[in-house]
Amino acid sequence: MAIELSLGDIAAHLGGELIGDANVRVNRIGPLEGATPSTISFLSHPKYQSQLAGSAAACVLVSPAMREAAAARGAAIVLDDPYLGFARLTQLWAQHLRPPATPGVHASAVIDPTASIGAGASIAAFAVVDAGAVVGEGAVIGPHCHIGANAAIGAKTRLASNVSVGFGCSIGQRGIIHGGVVIGADGFGFAPVGGRWEKIEQLGNVRIGDDVEIGANTCIDRGALADTVLEDGVKLDNLVQIGHNVRVGAHTAMAGCVGVAGSATIGAHCQIGGGAVVLGHLTLADRVIISAASVVMRSILKPGQYSGVFPIDDNAAWEKNAATLRQLHGLRERLRALEKKTP
Amino acid sequence: MAIELSLGDIAAHLGGELIGDANVRVNRIGPLEGATPSTISFLSHPKYQSQLAGSAAACVLVSPAMREAAAARGAAIVLDDPYLGFARLTQLWAQHLRPPATPGVHASAVIDPTASIGAGASIAAFAVVDAGAVVGEGAVIGPHCHIGANAAIGAKTRLASNVSVGFGCSIGQRGIIHGGVVIGADGFGFAPVGGRWEKIEQLGNVRIGDDVEIGANTCIDRGALADTVLEDGVKLDNLVQIGHNVRVGAHTAMAGCVGVAGSATIGAHCQIGGGAVVLGHLTLADRVIISAASVVMRSILKPGQYSGVFPIDDNAAWEKNAATLRQLHGLRERLRALEKKTP
Amino acid sequence: MAIELSLGDIAAHLGGELIGDANVRVNRIGPLEGATPSTISFLSHPKYQSQLAGSAAACVLVSPAMREAAAARGAAIVLDDPYLGFARLTQLWAQHLRPPATPGVHASAVIDPTASIGAGASIAAFAVVDAGAVVGEGAVIGPHCHIGANAAIGAKTRLASNVSVGFGCSIGQRGIIHGGVVIGADGFGFAPVGGRWEKIEQLGNVRIGDDVEIGANTCIDRGALADTVLEDGVKLDNLVQIGHNVRVGAHTAMAGCVGVAGSATIGAHCQIGGGAVVLGHLTLADRVIISAASVVMRSILKPGQYSGVFPIDDNAAWEKNAATLRQLHGLRERLRALEKKTP
Repeated sequence: MAIELSLGDIAAHLGGELIGDANVRVNRIGPLEGATPSTISFLSHPKYQSQLAGSAAACVLVSPAMREAAAARGAAIVLDDPYLGFARLTQLWAQHLRPPATPGVHASAVIDPTASIGAGASIAAFAVVDAGAVVGEGAVIGPHCHIGANAAIGAKTRLASNVSVGFGCSIGQRGIIHGGVVIGADGFGFAPVGGRWEKIEQLGNVRIGDDVEIGANTCIDRGALADTVLEDGVKLDNLVQIGHNVRVGAHTAMAGCVGVAGSATIGAHCQIGGGAVVLGHLTLADRVIISAASVVMRSILKPGQYSGVFPIDDNAAWEKNAATLRQLHGLRERLRALEKKTP
Repeated sequence: MAIELSLGDIAAHLGGELIGDANVRVNRIGPLEGATPSTISFLSHPKYQSQLAGSAAACVLVSPAMREAAAARGAAIVLDDPYLGFARLTQLWAQHLRPPATPGVHASAVIDPTASIGAGASIAAFAVVDAGAVVGEGAVIGPHCHIGANAAIGAKTRLASNVSVGFGCSIGQRGIIHGGVVIGADGFGFAPVGGRWEKIEQLGNVRIGDDVEIGANTCIDRGALADTVLEDGVKLDNLVQIGHNVRVGAHTAMAGCVGVAGSATIGAHCQIGGGAVVLGHLTLADRVIISAASVVMRSILKPGQYSGVFPIDDNAAWEKNAATLRQLHGLRERLRALEKKTP
Repeated sequence: MAIELSLGDIAAHLGGELIGDANVRVNRIGPLEGATPSTISFLSHPKYQSQLAGSAAACVLVSPAMREAAAARGAAIVLDDPYLGFARLTQLWAQHLRPPATPGVHASAVIDPTASIGAGASIAAFAVVDAGAVVGEGAVIGPHCHIGANAAIGAKTRLASNVSVGFGCSIGQRGIIHGGVVIGADGFGFAPVGGRWEKIEQLGNVRIGDDVEIGANTCIDRGALADTVLEDGVKLDNLVQIGHNVRVGAHTAMAGCVGVAGSATIGAHCQIGGGAVVLGHLTLADRVIISAASVVMRSILKPGQYSGVFPIDDNAAWEKNAATLRQLHGLRERLRALEKKTP
């Protein structure tokens, strides 16, 4: 698994100016601190500048503003956006590191004769592709995946192991769907009838745009009547729950364990912190940032950052404050009464 | 996938009085607002009554009280409970929409010779059914499911893909188990021994009643000594965690991401909002409603709605209030002191 | 499934002193209360002592301090740590109760010729083991598991159904990995570039120590550059999320639905309650206890118990207090003003 690349090849791939010997080879990407002479590193934020001079890294990705400081130290690749450069460098690395999928259909896979498998697609062992489903060119379907009837997987989209995509659901191009994801289970809908629940069958689908990444064991329910929609560029972390009829705007990111209840509409370019909950039927504007573990109980129509978390404390202090909190409204009334008495 | 049904057939199925032409055909279910001339709609709540007259829907499901108003507009089906009628209409739709399971055992499935497969059951590709397991009549076992030894799946119960049911666990009739559900993993039990954890093997099973629906990737642990029990009609959404020895009463519903810790006893007809947490060994009475994201830290013995969530605010306001909250008990003491001083 | 063991065999297995007839047989483990004459029970905490005399149990595990009280009642096994004895008794029971794995590779499994399968290992139906992977001696790989390229599963480690272990990841010896666990999905890393997210490929692995148990549908992401690490003896419950580059110290336990964000470092012997969230890049010292559903927003460098949960209340009371909470900082200012006015 040893990967070794020359600075020349890296600079060419990233499209930056190389200062230093193009033949020097690196075998590791790492932060400035702790870098070895075979590490390629990056300076993406001014706050790490103090670590530059003393770093043993073979080469550092830097911005034009850092060109001279970096050159004084040793080899460097100058890029307009070194953090983007770092991201692209990891992509170059991954091309060598990640085991490549084998194009073609594994002998054990069960493919309905009416399904369509695009050129260069890879269908792994024990995958099941149902009637009328379409797998795009160069797509990768991992072991034990289930693609339901008439579902569509876009070109170059990759599904890891044990992913299920329900009938009629679709994923765009270049998506990455991690292990155990369930797309298109029934939304949670019931009519109360004399103390029991009558099922409202979920007749919509899930439609997912291009360049969407979905973390492991995340669930995205099909819509009740219309569809559940993730627009282009959405990124969901692991164990996220997206209820029926939710719409998530383009390039919105949600960290792990977020729950979005049914029929919520979330704008584009939002960021939802880990463990946050968005209640049903709410609207979040574009560019809303929700802090981790906060609960959105009303629509938020203005961009900005919103929070709502009980501050953690040592247990004894928390117990006192939490007990008092249950009398808070009363305390306000008492304060008001005092204010009236005090001239 | 185009579904088209006549109003006559629909009225007959729902058992309501049809006002209008029985031969008119509809191809979509939808709300009054936005309905097209081929949409069948419903008026289930008086607050939407204002949308009735102007709706272009081909037909509207209404209650007897709305009979005349609906007839003045156009076709209608009159039902005692139009929302129940809507639910049954989605069920009729789903019969046409959902790809039917193929009865019989797929050639690739691995069925232990001592397992029993009921008449008309469907066992999909790559399913595994272990020794002594019983699959009821008309049950559907999806691809990549694993039914452990001596487990029992009731008649007409449907398991989607990648479901695992542990040895000795049982599910009643007409259940719906969505993708990735894990029933019967070990409960979380350890004895602390000199700084490490000694496993307490979990010897109970999971017993699930009739008409239970369980959402995608939800987990229900087996009991430690006795069983974990879900009674008839329980509905769990996605990514719910049910700890060992929990008992959930009949017709209780839990939304996504709820966690119920071990040995909690939850009554019948409860509703637990998304992301709520119920601590271990607590009791909830029948008909308790827990708001989303609330944490139940003590038993609740009276029906009613209970909440406990820090209100979300813009981040700057939250920071101020949260910081002050950590001094709340002290503020109360200061208020008391002031009260003593003020005549 | 009827298990029956003699008190003599049990005492020999547990290494304790038997008081009473070694030939008496028991078929059930249970608490003192409700014990039948064929139940073996235990007294692990003085608070249950009052139940001892009246219990109908065939035999009770007790500490030396309880020797006489127990002997006065009937049969007993005297052990230094009766709760550990109870744990070991469950293990003895499980040896008889749990269906044994069949050693050898199931005919349907797909094993790369370069993978290595240890002696006595069991590879179930439809398992997939990729190139260069190593499965240790006596390990158990359940149905529909996927072991990625060059991954390593330690000796005697057991994987239930539908587990996926990503390429290059490793699990130590005697581990228990429950159904649906995803080890080694990509960490959640993106560089923001002009309003969209550029993927930072995740180049690290997951390294898991010995004697680790991981609950159903839990996710452990691979590191970005370095590895994500779970040290020996860690116990994770179901639906836990461990972000990239997290390090969890030895013998730390996390209950269900915990989320740990990227690059957090959690000490040894910690206990994290169910539904708690630990934000990224934080440090928790050894022996820190986090109460259920609390949110850790700053590093905690001292052992102890920490909490932060809004107390639940009836909904009307909560609404009043929560509304007032949003004015809390202002209330403090008003209190200050009053204090200045009051002599």
